[in-house]
Amino acid sequence: MGNLAWINGEITSLSEAKVSLEDRGYLLGDGVYEVIRVYNGCTFYLEAHLERLSNSANAIQIEIPYSGSEIEKAVNDLIAESAYKDCYIYMQVTRGAAMRDHIFPDGVTPGMVMYVRPLAPLLAVEDVSPAKCITLPDERWMNCHIKTVNLLPNLLARQKAYEAKALEAILYRPGNIVTEGTRSNVFAIIDGVVRTHPQTNLILPGISRRIVLDLLGESDTYYEEKAFTVEDLKKASEVWLTSTSLEVNPVYEVDEYKVKGNLPGPLTLMLMKKFREKISSECKGD
Amino acid sequence: MGNLAWINGEITSLSEAKVSLEDRGYLLGDGVYEVIRVYNGCTFYLEAHLERLSNSANAIQIEIPYSGSEIEKAVNDLIAESAYKDCYIYMQVTRGAAMRDHIFPDGVTPGMVMYVRPLAPLLAVEDVSPAKCITLPDERWMNCHIKTVNLLPNLLARQKAYEAKALEAILYRPGNIVTEGTRSNVFAIIDGVVRTHPQTNLILPGISRRIVLDLLGESDTYYEEKAFTVEDLKKASEVWLTSTSLEVNPVYEVDEYKVKGNLPGPLTLMLMKKFREKISSECKGD
Repeated sequence: MGNLAWINGEITSLSEAKVSLEDRGYLLGDGVYEVIRVYNGCTFYLEAHLERLSNSANAIQIEIPYSGSEIEKAVNDLIAESAYKDCYIYMQVTRGAAMRDHIFPDGVTPGMVMYVRPLAPLLAVEDVSPAKCITLPDERWMNCHIKTVNLLPNLLARQKAYEAKALEAILYRPGNIVTEGTRSNVFAIIDGVVRTHPQTNLILPGISRRIVLDLLGESDTYYEEKAFTVEDLKKASEVWLTSTSLEVNPVYEVDEYKVKGNLPGPLTLMLMKKFREKISSECKGD
Repeated sequence: MGNLAWINGEITSLSEAKVSLEDRGYLLGDGVYEVIRVYNGCTFYLEAHLERLSNSANAIQIEIPYSGSEIEKAVNDLIAESAYKDCYIYMQVTRGAAMRDHIFPDGVTPGMVMYVRPLAPLLAVEDVSPAKCITLPDERWMNCHIKTVNLLPNLLARQKAYEAKALEAILYRPGNIVTEGTRSNVFAIIDGVVRTHPQTNLILPGISRRIVLDLLGESDTYYEEKAFTVEDLKKASEVWLTSTSLEVNPVYEVDEYKVKGNLPGPLTLMLMKKFREKISSECKGD
């Protein structure tokens, strides 16, 4: 029961969970991760998360030491043993523990850990607060499509947002090109058209981003995966963020620009509701 | 005796040393580090390393939980207990262990770990192998002056160098501007003038780099801290790398460009010898 960790197949309490000091995740940031939302005791888009974990690991040449079905079983065991209904699973794969060296170690098995922690049950769509965001330069590396634990640039930007009483920092590259948030993808309606940054090395292939694009397609809403600038963003009629933990979160303010009153725009609201329907249909629960 | 770790004041064997799974170093790359060379049982430029650790920690708003003199004592205890003469001390400070969140946790004490591992005694200057290097795009973030554990871009480039049988990958930014190596600073004699990238956010403030600049000054050798391109590098008459573990290491090949025979150039050799004199004068040993 409660917060549990799974370390290379062994379940323990999270508060006592430890990893080797020489784990390359700890010393070198040599690892990748995923966060999976559990609604009603049931994982949401687990397969897509495992596919992305596999892509991330491949991109940095780490071999995940368990099969997809072994990981699925471990995830479900953790949820069952925790007895949580609303929670999330964090999972991380690192290149293993070895004498510290930049060069990949020979003959070392990668390490995998997971843990489960509870979340508050979902707010009603009407109770989701539209977010204030700030914009900041995107100072990250050039491979943001890989979900690695090298998160310091994200932490520093997010902390600045927090200190500015904002939910998120929206990042921009040279030319003021908006890429994404520190932990979310960004959508905006600009001159009447839904836009989001194309899927390149500069943004995470967000699973909620993908779901939202599918929902737009299903509702015959035209959209463009085409980069836009901070200036474009500051004339948008609707702005929202997507992520596993935020789902679809409306934005009411970007820096000093007021997007639109203090309520989600009509398309944002439609997507929030349709996202919830997706959750209901995928996670019927017991 | 042997490989020992120091974890928040407790000494243990390195092979058994563990950190919390929820340490922000492991989950988020939220930490900074230093590597200090020990010659003859005596640390080399410890004070400069501690100053840089402090600068790195300040830059990301981590408060180092021990004073400089406490850390010095711990370093010397570790060396004494290990009974190593030629070794290095690795030290890392992270924002501590807390429930994972991008936002800095309240009321959590940062964690500090160190360990000691042996090194082979120094090769005679004549026996140091001039290095082959390759060039690769610098894909790192924009704050390379902070020595953080977000080292994945460095690992990936270094691994490529290793697979190309090269000692180091020399990195370049857009415009083919050479910044530094994955774990070293780069110097070159171009059109008769010693050049190295200026100390900006794009390179680590190398301590061996600083020592070499001082040695150049002491020997009245004119130099410029001025960026150069990959093309400039490929017409250099001498090229060398500096780092704590490489000291001054001559380079004989950059990609397909042969710098100069298979021997260090005269200035490189002078610097290698003078660097050794620095070591001898700083680390007289017992």
